[in-house]
Amino acid sequence: MNSFVERVAAVSRRNRSLVCVGLDPDPDLMAVKDVLTFNRAIIDATKDIVCAYKPNLPFYEALGQSGLEALAGTVAHIRRVAPDVQVVGDGKRGDIASTNVMYARALFDVWGFDAATVNAWGGGESLEPFMEYGDRGVLVWCRSSNPGAKEFQDVRLQGEPRGVPLYEWMARRASSWNVRGNVGLVVGSTFPDELKVVRSHCPGMTILIPGVGAQGGDLATSVRNGLDDGAPNILISSSRGITYASRSAETFADAARAAAEDLRERINCVLEAEGRPWDPS
Amino acid sequence: MNSFVERVAAVSRRNRSLVCVGLDPDPDLMAVKDVLTFNRAIIDATKDIVCAYKPNLPFYEALGQSGLEALAGTVAHIRRVAPDVQVVGDGKRGDIASTNVMYARALFDVWGFDAATVNAWGGGESLEPFMEYGDRGVLVWCRSSNPGAKEFQDVRLQGEPRGVPLYEWMARRASSWNVRGNVGLVVGSTFPDELKVVRSHCPGMTILIPGVGAQGGDLATSVRNGLDDGAPNILISSSRGITYASRSAETFADAARAAAEDLRERINCVLEAEGRPWDPS
Repeated sequence: MNSFVERVAAVSRRNRSLVCVGLDPDPDLMAVKDVLTFNRAIIDATKDIVCAYKPNLPFYEALGQSGLEALAGTVAHIRRVAPDVQVVGDGKRGDIASTNVMYARALFDVWGFDAATVNAWGGGESLEPFMEYGDRGVLVWCRSSNPGAKEFQDVRLQGEPRGVPLYEWMARRASSWNVRGNVGLVVGSTFPDELKVVRSHCPGMTILIPGVGAQGGDLATSVRNGLDDGAPNILISSSRGITYASRSAETFADAARAAAEDLRERINCVLEAEGRPWDPS
Repeated sequence: MNSFVERVAAVSRRNRSLVCVGLDPDPDLMAVKDVLTFNRAIIDATKDIVCAYKPNLPFYEALGQSGLEALAGTVAHIRRVAPDVQVVGDGKRGDIASTNVMYARALFDVWGFDAATVNAWGGGESLEPFMEYGDRGVLVWCRSSNPGAKEFQDVRLQGEPRGVPLYEWMARRASSWNVRGNVGLVVGSTFPDELKVVRSHCPGMTILIPGVGAQGGDLATSVRNGLDDGAPNILISSSRGITYASRSAETFADAARAAAEDLRERINCVLEAEGRPWDPS
């Protein structure tokens, strides 16, 4: 099996898309009440114009056993109808290494995700059980998109490297852990300057960029600042902006496709402006 | 309903115990293969000599749906046979606030835990959805017991407060978030000096202290350094040292009780040496 980075590059190229659709089923917002029915419709409507789906695990866990069954059904449906589209399990999991063995088993063997978001508070040593799955992506939660993110992520270091903010130090450390080529990062689009700093330290690594829709991140700057040399190596993730584009049972799937298509085109315009079109003429 | 701090204090006093039993079902180690059968036996054997149980969520998630059903059955069994013993859901969950609404719902409404361990990388603002459940404990993962913990937790801050290590800064911030009296901390017993620092900043707050068994933490120093004024406000957590004290189906429950009893007594000896016996004469 190819690496996560290679699989993302291949499906992105084929679908001419860096769009990742966040699947955050919220009973208060879904146009139809059944989670699996809802997700299947979104997937069927968008599978040829995206590169990844990102189920947000707590949205399933909050629904109890039926939610987790819907998650299993959702992953199975993606494998059936869009086997090359990547599935990122978004749970920001992380603990010490002996416990991370179990997290990795749950995320990569039980759920079968292509990649998972992880929490690195326990240090690189703690993440080894995730990284050992060489063909799966391990996306380190580095800079989040919320107002309170700065409380820890922006504290500056004393000593060497003096004055560096902690999120940047995390990116530099993550780069050092990337001996198998499967470590990536999560950097919210609401902080495009930070995204540029992270990319400078992490060439060749996947960056998952949430927050472009409802959270108001600056799309064009995020794409420009996140782009890697060679393959783009970014996943631009939108959840509510796509899945809840319409709240009507009759139109939500078409509206999701239209919103995903719009996002894809806006991203592709930036790629062209940067001299990086999908089909160089 | 009383607060988590009050409930811990009450059951600790009644059972004369600061012992928290970690329930980490590992098919390679369990004396009987069925998780619920195993956990029930452990609970029945120890329920009058502990103050809390701590299911480690990934150990259930790694077993798929049957594991999660066993987790639900385990919590239900504790409620039935030991309704005042506290149940701490150990998942180190955390994301930005809109997602944490769902995590809090899963942990506190669906699973019904008395407290949950959380990850504060998103800052105090991100944890508000957990803290809003005023009668539940929110235990912030502060200083972990693994060798690699120092990579981030020990970096020192530039500026104010200059030179403070990050784990200490997290404890100080957590104290500032504790407006409802339900925030606590997780500090591994392998770092008793750090535990003393954390306690100095966090009077009145619960500290969950894992790592006393298999990970070799120093019990007596941890108890002394973690003890609060008034109620002890510490949970001394042991998992493998209790649940896998025997690997025989005939003796594992009795062995678990003996190990829990031994841990309880060793802790209580420290309390007496500190002039803090359960029954002052």
